[in-house]
Amino acid sequence: MTARQNRQWRLTARPVGLFKESDFKWTVEPVPEIGDGQLLVHNLYLSLDPTNRGWANEADTYLPAVKLGDVMRGGTIGVVEESRNPDFAVGDHVSGLLGWQEYAVSNGAGITKLPHNPAIPLTAYMGLFGHIGATAYFGLLDIGRPKEGETLVVSAAAGAVGSIVGQIGKIKGCRVVGIAGSEQKCRWLVDDLGFDAAIDYKKEDVSASLKQHCPNGIDIDFENVGGRIFDAVLAQINLRARIVLCGLISGYNAAEPVPGPYNFAMILIKRARVEGFIVMDYMNRAEEAFRDLGSWLMSGRLKYRVDEVVGLEQAPTAINGLFTGSNIGKLVVKI
Amino acid sequence: MTARQNRQWRLTARPVGLFKESDFKWTVEPVPEIGDGQLLVHNLYLSLDPTNRGWANEADTYLPAVKLGDVMRGGTIGVVEESRNPDFAVGDHVSGLLGWQEYAVSNGAGITKLPHNPAIPLTAYMGLFGHIGATAYFGLLDIGRPKEGETLVVSAAAGAVGSIVGQIGKIKGCRVVGIAGSEQKCRWLVDDLGFDAAIDYKKEDVSASLKQHCPNGIDIDFENVGGRIFDAVLAQINLRARIVLCGLISGYNAAEPVPGPYNFAMILIKRARVEGFIVMDYMNRAEEAFRDLGSWLMSGRLKYRVDEVVGLEQAPTAINGLFTGSNIGKLVVKI
Repeated sequence: MTARQNRQWRLTARPVGLFKESDFKWTVEPVPEIGDGQLLVHNLYLSLDPTNRGWANEADTYLPAVKLGDVMRGGTIGVVEESRNPDFAVGDHVSGLLGWQEYAVSNGAGITKLPHNPAIPLTAYMGLFGHIGATAYFGLLDIGRPKEGETLVVSAAAGAVGSIVGQIGKIKGCRVVGIAGSEQKCRWLVDDLGFDAAIDYKKEDVSASLKQHCPNGIDIDFENVGGRIFDAVLAQINLRARIVLCGLISGYNAAEPVPGPYNFAMILIKRARVEGFIVMDYMNRAEEAFRDLGSWLMSGRLKYRVDEVVGLEQAPTAINGLFTGSNIGKLVVKI
Repeated sequence: MTARQNRQWRLTARPVGLFKESDFKWTVEPVPEIGDGQLLVHNLYLSLDPTNRGWANEADTYLPAVKLGDVMRGGTIGVVEESRNPDFAVGDHVSGLLGWQEYAVSNGAGITKLPHNPAIPLTAYMGLFGHIGATAYFGLLDIGRPKEGETLVVSAAAGAVGSIVGQIGKIKGCRVVGIAGSEQKCRWLVDDLGFDAAIDYKKEDVSASLKQHCPNGIDIDFENVGGRIFDAVLAQINLRARIVLCGLISGYNAAEPVPGPYNFAMILIKRARVEGFIVMDYMNRAEEAFRDLGSWLMSGRLKYRVDEVVGLEQAPTAINGLFTGSNIGKLVVKI
């Protein structure tokens, strides 16, 4: 068995700006033997998420920085191929942070067994029924606390999280306005997902378009982006607005310190609440989210989209699509 | 009676940077006659507060901008000299936003009758038993939600609000670190008010001193200042920190747009909550605050300090002390 090869991407340099392939090293090693209590997982899918960029920096974020020379951290779905751990059986599908590699050995900590449900494609556990769905659900409902008739703005709205947030907003009776980076994305949001309006920030004057599409101001901002788009939103928030701070993708590749929003004082003037949100903190309540998301999916009120790239070797270049705006929906790599 | 003169400061120019006396015009007018339902108030004290600077700008804040040519808006305490309003009797002491002038006519809206209590000096109703005390009380307790053993940092700590916030923090069992702008202020905070430590931001490296005085990180930041001091605090916040956004005085005199905190992403990483706070929203609950503040005052657990400038003519220059850091405690003008 150990003759099998484990192909890996190791992080070997701190990226400056976008990831470059030269920030990684492609290594091929024998698949390791497992010890008592361990399991060997064959990774089938790798999740690419904006937050990965922060993990590659020198400084720790909400997780420790990936060390140079280590296999790049990443969310994975795989199948158990060997097990000396009573909680996992060969053939179980599992998700975890098993990294940019084909095989991983684990003691089971942080590994989630996925349900056997042939009606649900495995990649859904990286999207709607994984960290993405939970992010959208708890971020919007627990932190944003939408009320019927309120106006919700979502940035990076055609991304994995944003596209679900907007649909949940519609289910909860909000007016939903998405901000995205192409005409095609905007059409998808409005025509397929039922957003009330979408703003193409690459072509439109975001402030003017927000004014047009949010005639009653903005009650909730689900913020994935930061920077000038966030500033445009802040300028139009209502009294007691809630800002779900889920991501600041516009700054993730900056080489210099990035200033906070110029309209920061609006938080004071409008007695708004800005709250940082990381889905890890909610995974113990994930079933709550998946029950609702599943029922909305079944009843046709919720759609999701997976953008699948084939081949682990593509990961270092594919991930930049998250920052340049080339993908729609959840970006995954089929290993 | 109408032979009496009403001396006033009218705002005649939008200030650029600090207030200049030339932004105001000193006018002397006959004291107006009152009509049915009205009262004439003789203002005795004028409150000078950092927020006044924002009111003088062209743009509305949480209150409409003061119009050019109007008497400058300001909090006042005065005595009713004439009344044709059944709710007010001659001799009543009242507080309200009656402006930078000796006399004002009011229909009673927004005017609060002050209790007759010879043990309490009138200026206390501009401090501990007014908007200042309520700001400190509700801002810290409702938004900051301190828990025993937590670390509270207060900026502009020797100011009217900050000095009370820190003392309430001590009463609630927090470790309290103040940031202020002189050795004298720092000594007052530690020696007289019982702060655990005070940092002189004009002389010390704020980041290094915070690290020294907040060995367990920062759980609550009562933010009055913004700018580089706020950034130093944000860099050291703990998981689920609360930031009571009460003021951003470092930017009030800026002629150019002021960037938000460079460490804005810390709010996300630490799942912190930033909430804007304006005391107006809490004045209907003011009795709650004054009951506790009064009992702490009586039992010697709370001190306050009034910095009194004599003469209405001083107002345009005295107010700049709030921004240059020359006053300690609550700044008032004895009219």
